[in-house]
Amino acid sequence: MRVGFVQFAPELGRSQPNLERAEALAPRADLLVLPELAASGYNFESTAQARSLSEPADGPTLAACRRIARKTGAAAVVAGFAERDGDRLYNSALLADAGGLLGVYRKTHVFESEKDHFLPGDTGFRVWDVAGVRVGVMVCFDWFFPEAARTLALRGAEIIAHPSNLVLPWCPDSMPVRSLENAVFAVTCNRWGEERGLKFIGRSQVTAPDGQILVRAPDGADAAETVEIDPARARVKTIAKRNDRFGDRRPEHYAR
Amino acid sequence: MRVGFVQFAPELGRSQPNLERAEALAPRADLLVLPELAASGYNFESTAQARSLSEPADGPTLAACRRIARKTGAAAVVAGFAERDGDRLYNSALLADAGGLLGVYRKTHVFESEKDHFLPGDTGFRVWDVAGVRVGVMVCFDWFFPEAARTLALRGAEIIAHPSNLVLPWCPDSMPVRSLENAVFAVTCNRWGEERGLKFIGRSQVTAPDGQILVRAPDGADAAETVEIDPARARVKTIAKRNDRFGDRRPEHYAR
Repeated sequence: MRVGFVQFAPELGRSQPNLERAEALAPRADLLVLPELAASGYNFESTAQARSLSEPADGPTLAACRRIARKTGAAAVVAGFAERDGDRLYNSALLADAGGLLGVYRKTHVFESEKDHFLPGDTGFRVWDVAGVRVGVMVCFDWFFPEAARTLALRGAEIIAHPSNLVLPWCPDSMPVRSLENAVFAVTCNRWGEERGLKFIGRSQVTAPDGQILVRAPDGADAAETVEIDPARARVKTIAKRNDRFGDRRPEHYAR
Repeated sequence: MRVGFVQFAPELGRSQPNLERAEALAPRADLLVLPELAASGYNFESTAQARSLSEPADGPTLAACRRIARKTGAAAVVAGFAERDGDRLYNSALLADAGGLLGVYRKTHVFESEKDHFLPGDTGFRVWDVAGVRVGVMVCFDWFFPEAARTLALRGAEIIAHPSNLVLPWCPDSMPVRSLENAVFAVTCNRWGEERGLKFIGRSQVTAPDGQILVRAPDGADAAETVEIDPARARVKTIAKRNDRFGDRRPEHYAR
């Protein structure tokens, strides 16, 4: 299975050119991940602007993901978008194939000024079947909470698709631990560039169940990278001959 | 507050010389951590040998920790020991001051052949007050399970004392994430050397709430290192202006 990311630098408020840029960059792969808020941009001047750049789950981002799936042969494309559901806005990610929408995840842990515009997600952490492989989704800052990747892995995720707009420095060097502790692959697609004083750090990457970084993009440039993985590796939770990441858990001793 | 570790290479079955070695190396500090199974050694040939090297919580390891506390001025010394409680053996760690025993933690996640000798711990994760600072204890392989450090931090630990006998490669580069995600200090005291074909990796270290490694020992040598820390840093759980490691948690969405 070939998985990858489309790192680029969305421009705030220019949804259509942003989606076209992603589409132009997208390489052949079975699973592709785009950044968080890939169409709208991130650093809204106001909730009114966030609202004007929001879209329903069957909006322009879905249409672009379907086109990308057709162009690249991908069984699924994951992209972040500003979701409008009635009056409510969520920082969401959708999963789509060429035929249409497979599902939506609404970001659980919203970051900084996102709190002004978006409600905390109400979907919980979800896992979908993509060509026989279980794919879970979390968005950007969710990574900081070990419970996010853990929950996805416990629900069967073999690959975590991770659309991001990272501004803090820690994620790229921490995701190997998220992959290792859960024995999952993770595809972090970050954006690069600046928006109204906010600098994004690029460095999209794919990490493996043994904590290895399989491919990492630089900061400051578009980067569409893919790597061949064997998702079956994520079905083996053993750490050592007699230890298992899940079988050895003792939830009766864990604080919630 | 000055915290540190006493990294050395216990010899299997030579409890008294091992404890004397730790005592000789121990530097002045407020909190000192010794390795897992510091007196007995690790790689027992049989459960009979493990039993013969085990001790009650008020045995020779406690006596040595009390002497170390007296010598170094430490408010607490933490050391791993093979605990015998009636017929049962646990891979435990004790916390002591010059006056005596402060408490015992029994390792929750036992590793590989430890399973032949030791019962899984039944104490759960505990936190003690040491000179006004909250100190939690986990042992070696517990680190692999994010729930261990998380539980200690949620129970108020500002410092995690982490006696270890590490043989897998990942802990030293992963503990910064444990410290970062929980905003806690961690003092990992690992041993070095070999026992019956098992190689330990040294590299004891102290990590900080921002994920920095404050001090790291080499592999392959005794190392008694200390560093001055401000435990108040671990009381601040903010990540960004409007985000908090604990306040932003959403346990209703976390799988157990």
